[in-house]
Amino acid sequence: MEHKAIERLMFDYSYHLDMNHPDELAALFVEDCEVSYAPNFGATGMEAYKKTLEGIGTFFSGTSHHNSNISIDFISPAEAEVRSIVLAVHRYVKERPDGILYGQYFDRVVKIDGQWKFKRRELRTTMTTDYHVRASNPIGRAA
Amino acid sequence: MEHKAIERLMFDYSYHLDMNHPDELAALFVEDCEVSYAPNFGATGMEAYKKTLEGIGTFFSGTSHHNSNISIDFISPAEAEVRSIVLAVHRYVKERPDGILYGQYFDRVVKIDGQWKFKRRELRTTMTTDYHVRASNPIGRAA
Amino acid sequence: MEHKAIERLMFDYSYHLDMNHPDELAALFVEDCEVSYAPNFGATGMEAYKKTLEGIGTFFSGTSHHNSNISIDFISPAEAEVRSIVLAVHRYVKERPDGILYGQYFDRVVKIDGQWKFKRRELRTTMTTDYHVRASNPIGRAA
Repeated sequence: MEHKAIERLMFDYSYHLDMNHPDELAALFVEDCEVSYAPNFGATGMEAYKKTLEGIGTFFSGTSHHNSNISIDFISPAEAEVRSIVLAVHRYVKERPDGILYGQYFDRVVKIDGQWKFKRRELRTTMTTDYHVRASNPIGRAA
Repeated sequence: MEHKAIERLMFDYSYHLDMNHPDELAALFVEDCEVSYAPNFGATGMEAYKKTLEGIGTFFSGTSHHNSNISIDFISPAEAEVRSIVLAVHRYVKERPDGILYGQYFDRVVKIDGQWKFKRRELRTTMTTDYHVRASNPIGRAA
Repeated sequence: MEHKAIERLMFDYSYHLDMNHPDELAALFVEDCEVSYAPNFGATGMEAYKKTLEGIGTFFSGTSHHNSNISIDFISPAEAEVRSIVLAVHRYVKERPDGILYGQYFDRVVKIDGQWKFKRRELRTTMTTDYHVRASNPIGRAA
């Protein structure tokens, strides 16, 4: 079922991130992907995206990415918008408290040759605790 | 699929709660809804429920509600009992540590005019950390 | 649907663990189950498994097990491999900080007489905070 396949894409992303598998991560994106983790922290296109993955292995001693609340709206049988949330816990190689990110993902996913991939990933930050990334895309919570 | 539509109801609830959208939240409930967040903290009927939503925007600077373990038992094609758990993190406007709630939701959902809605929501509290709500419905953990 | 039934198995496990229902927990496993929570902390067969469940009620005052990222690969219509992650928060009876486990579950589940059960559960530990179990099966994160 397509729902399950799209959820699996998101779970594989987190799994390979937590396992420090940058090549497997990159393979989950289309060549002309757009990724925004924060203003001035993201990528346009695969080559740029791969650069953002450098350092996962040396900067963190461990991470755990918990995806939930996955809400899928199909635009066509081969394209969908996905809203979800993430709890991401980062343990640093450096001596410092774990960095916690509470965020919302807004993704555009496409099915190509039978495989769902990320065409666009945008992380919006609900809030953080002791997290090393200071800038963030806001969720736009109503005042 | 009905499973997905019911899960989506729960995710929309958390999304609109985290976004401080009280009108969109209320629209997820039937008019004669019953809500119990804790003893003496809940509502019977839509008007009372809307009152419980006042202050989300001014009391919290941010919240993140992570729903998982969603377990659905259909009573009929248009009614179901749902058990799930939530990790809810609350950042206060006031200077104080984040309030964390670990809870179980027991919901009765109904499908009306093609739309699943909450007829009853009961939150049972597994445990909390630095949370502002002191009273709670117990989960009834065996001794 | 089989996916939902397998997810439900995992949610029932966590529910009964958090409710301190050792008999209902054990009923989710086949008689010749294999369970590994850590090196030298696990069980082969139902009788040994039941022994590992002793003390849940007296050691913890509460626990909350949040399962997500459930990824199912069917081997046959009645057997599947399941990868998932867990956020498990443990509140101790003793005065000490909550123990937090961030882990990956690798399960083999089988359908017997119409009911999915655990044949094998292996917990791999991504990282922990203030957790009482010191040994762990590593996730094998790439260096």
